[in-house]
Amino acid sequence: MAGTTTVGKGASASATSPELVKAMAFLHADEAHAVARLVDWLKIPSISTDPAYKGEVAKAADWAAAQLRELGFQVEVKETGKPAGSGHPIVLAKSAAAVVAEKSKTKANGPHILFYGHYDVQPVDPVNLWDSPPFEPVVREAKPGEAGGTRVVARGAVDDKGQVASFLDALRAWKHATGDATGGVAYTILLEGEEESGSTSLEAFLVAHQTDLKACDVCLISDTGMLGRGRPAITYGVRGLAYTEIILHGPNQDLHSGLWGGRVPNPINELVQILGQMWTWERAVRIPGFYDDVTELSYEERAAWRELNFDPAEALAKIGLPPESDIGESWYTASEREWARPTAEINGIMAGYTGVGAKTVIPSHAMAKVSFRLVPNQTPDKTVSMFFDWLQSKTPPGCRWELKDLHGGHPATCSTDSPTLAAATRALEHAAGRKPDLIKSGGSIPVAGMLRALVGIDTIFMGFGLDDDRVHSPNEKFELDCFRLGARAHAAFIAELKAMT
Amino acid sequence: MAGTTTVGKGASASATSPELVKAMAFLHADEAHAVARLVDWLKIPSISTDPAYKGEVAKAADWAAAQLRELGFQVEVKETGKPAGSGHPIVLAKSAAAVVAEKSKTKANGPHILFYGHYDVQPVDPVNLWDSPPFEPVVREAKPGEAGGTRVVARGAVDDKGQVASFLDALRAWKHATGDATGGVAYTILLEGEEESGSTSLEAFLVAHQTDLKACDVCLISDTGMLGRGRPAITYGVRGLAYTEIILHGPNQDLHSGLWGGRVPNPINELVQILGQMWTWERAVRIPGFYDDVTELSYEERAAWRELNFDPAEALAKIGLPPESDIGESWYTASEREWARPTAEINGIMAGYTGVGAKTVIPSHAMAKVSFRLVPNQTPDKTVSMFFDWLQSKTPPGCRWELKDLHGGHPATCSTDSPTLAAATRALEHAAGRKPDLIKSGGSIPVAGMLRALVGIDTIFMGFGLDDDRVHSPNEKFELDCFRLGARAHAAFIAELKAMT
Repeated sequence: MAGTTTVGKGASASATSPELVKAMAFLHADEAHAVARLVDWLKIPSISTDPAYKGEVAKAADWAAAQLRELGFQVEVKETGKPAGSGHPIVLAKSAAAVVAEKSKTKANGPHILFYGHYDVQPVDPVNLWDSPPFEPVVREAKPGEAGGTRVVARGAVDDKGQVASFLDALRAWKHATGDATGGVAYTILLEGEEESGSTSLEAFLVAHQTDLKACDVCLISDTGMLGRGRPAITYGVRGLAYTEIILHGPNQDLHSGLWGGRVPNPINELVQILGQMWTWERAVRIPGFYDDVTELSYEERAAWRELNFDPAEALAKIGLPPESDIGESWYTASEREWARPTAEINGIMAGYTGVGAKTVIPSHAMAKVSFRLVPNQTPDKTVSMFFDWLQSKTPPGCRWELKDLHGGHPATCSTDSPTLAAATRALEHAAGRKPDLIKSGGSIPVAGMLRALVGIDTIFMGFGLDDDRVHSPNEKFELDCFRLGARAHAAFIAELKAMT
Repeated sequence: MAGTTTVGKGASASATSPELVKAMAFLHADEAHAVARLVDWLKIPSISTDPAYKGEVAKAADWAAAQLRELGFQVEVKETGKPAGSGHPIVLAKSAAAVVAEKSKTKANGPHILFYGHYDVQPVDPVNLWDSPPFEPVVREAKPGEAGGTRVVARGAVDDKGQVASFLDALRAWKHATGDATGGVAYTILLEGEEESGSTSLEAFLVAHQTDLKACDVCLISDTGMLGRGRPAITYGVRGLAYTEIILHGPNQDLHSGLWGGRVPNPINELVQILGQMWTWERAVRIPGFYDDVTELSYEERAAWRELNFDPAEALAKIGLPPESDIGESWYTASEREWARPTAEINGIMAGYTGVGAKTVIPSHAMAKVSFRLVPNQTPDKTVSMFFDWLQSKTPPGCRWELKDLHGGHPATCSTDSPTLAAATRALEHAAGRKPDLIKSGGSIPVAGMLRALVGIDTIFMGFGLDDDRVHSPNEKFELDCFRLGARAHAAFIAELKAMT
């Protein structure tokens, strides 16, 4: 990577496009409708990890398909899974220019963009911590003590319905301005319904549509964040993920801790003793081989990131923690640890008696959900296998493991030399009036790794979330300033791409 | 302690009592009714730890009070708690001889027994693991693969309603045989409703009735077990208990583990790392000072216990574990670890996402229920205070603890020189046709410690449970052979006491 100064150079087409002026004016005028459309979509509880919501997930797909049809796309809602239909549907849409290129079996003029988004959402628990029901979206001002302006509060507000909706609004604006939702640029749109549950059907889908998708030059995703309010950002890489559920089985029944305590392995004690060995004192991961494949940060990359002036204390203050909570490998800064270092996290743990009061039980088993964030050159399969081997090597006497590999995703990084990345940078600068930060993200978007492997294209992340958006948490929100920036940036990006045709 | 040979000597009054012959015949003839009465009591879901069952707990108290009135006792159902009635009631009953002694302000002829039992039960979760509903008692034969004979399956079957019921049946038999339920022996009966939730009102009750209760010479409790089928036992000591709930608070909201993993304390990771340090490799407790007050086992006591030929492998096999699961401090045998060594157990743990599938969350807090079994000379207060100090010394940067001391009980040991203990030994030998084992128990019965401190009396435990009775677990049971032995032993004990008047 070559630092923030090498991208975004070249003449900005956004500044001179009369269609974009029209499109921007439409966005401004249409914003109340745009918010109403988003609220409509957010009302659908499309929780993909919970089978009880399967019908709702399908509804959310149909909602998006209807929007895209209205915008003039050729749209298919594709069944996924084995057997067919057991997965959540994928919405696949093609712009007029993409359809023309496909029919004539020629390359599109200029870049062909694959826009990826997801319409599924995370579970909502603990639901009692929500100030308003997660699927009854509320548009409101910041409360006293909250930063930022007007926001939409609902599950999926920023992750990812709100960000996809900002893209749909840009298309709507271009359609209004020119009659063509992409201004003649080739776009293929893929909206997934399993991003929050491991994208389990996506790989098979990409394989099945490989030839088709190879028409695309680069993937564009709006599912990431910015370093702060009014600071646009392009994310050029994400971490990978390996997610496991582990259960340690001991006695074949729950036991009285008085009669058995001290003469039998207590599965909770044992699980905690084993998992407690997973980190060094500075929270580096102690699983043998864990760091073997990790690509070390370059001097240049560290220098470029330092220029971003990321303030860890400020970020921690937003989640109620003092500066000393900035813990982790001492050789790396907070953003280096988030963007370029792997981690091990226990995401859930449950065993024994967890109700009110006291119960003196030694339970028959203990469960934990353990996940790993991965960086370039690590793979989910190898990581899970090292973890499981490590657990097996520590099996307490007479106990046994039940080990489940729930899902994973490869890390992905885009080359900063890409002309499309440069175009996106110009578009964001035009939309925001400020040069974007070139950053990475600690989150995982498995599709990026899969697209690299199966379709041979890189991914650019143009995201509009904020650190305090409560992604995956109660009271998730998306601020209207961010929503607006998203729509303007996508609109400007179309102008930049149009100039490249 | 002087070994098993020094107790139980002296002439057995049981063998020569014509009243006892009549009482035993009645027990034999009346068994079907006795079981029906027990089933009736077991149907009342008297779960004391859960406020939702307060009315049911009161019903179970009234049931016992009615039985005792029918048997000719002077009975009171006493309110407990502050404010009055906030606790569960205590049933206090006095036999004719006890009432006479009280009225004449004289000492009863012969020993005055305080019989203690509890009518409350443990919670029933996980309820789906019960073969029959916990409060719909089933009387059935052993299934293929199960040891033992006919049994009653229900919550509370052995702990403690079934054991108290066997005592009530002995009283009924003596009433039938002689017209007096205790054959003229002074008995005070105290039935508690908070044993499974920490006996929180008991101490104040004992203080309030101190003068009254000081008329008693020794306490008798049937709430322990035997080393095997057909092996009667007297337990002369129990461990104490300290029970805590600890919550580690980190960020003020749940976080996305991708965006925050590696740069913030994850309360689950941190809690697990801290609690994982609580034991040495051989499961000794590492909290500083934990063993300071522990009374070391004597050579004589270890020798006496060795003669009991306790087989840890056989016990482990019953709960589905191989012999190598006999873990713990290597210098001590399994029964030494259970009866004379303190432990630390995590009885419950819960944090983060615990539902189906994957959720990549760093939760705002993590909870564990941690308890300690205590041995002579340790105290609950000091233990909890050492534990909490240890936790505080390990607080992760920026996090804070919420620490709750839920309840505790002192350990208690009875002198083996006691003539009442000798009488109980003779009674058990007569009832079972075999000399009882003189043992201790790893469980905790806080009343024993309180009685020693507040009333100045020791406690003898004459219990009839088996290792595989599933105390505190799904499918708790009490075998009719044990129930029968209990009734016969209590009946014979009355004969022995009568001979001492």
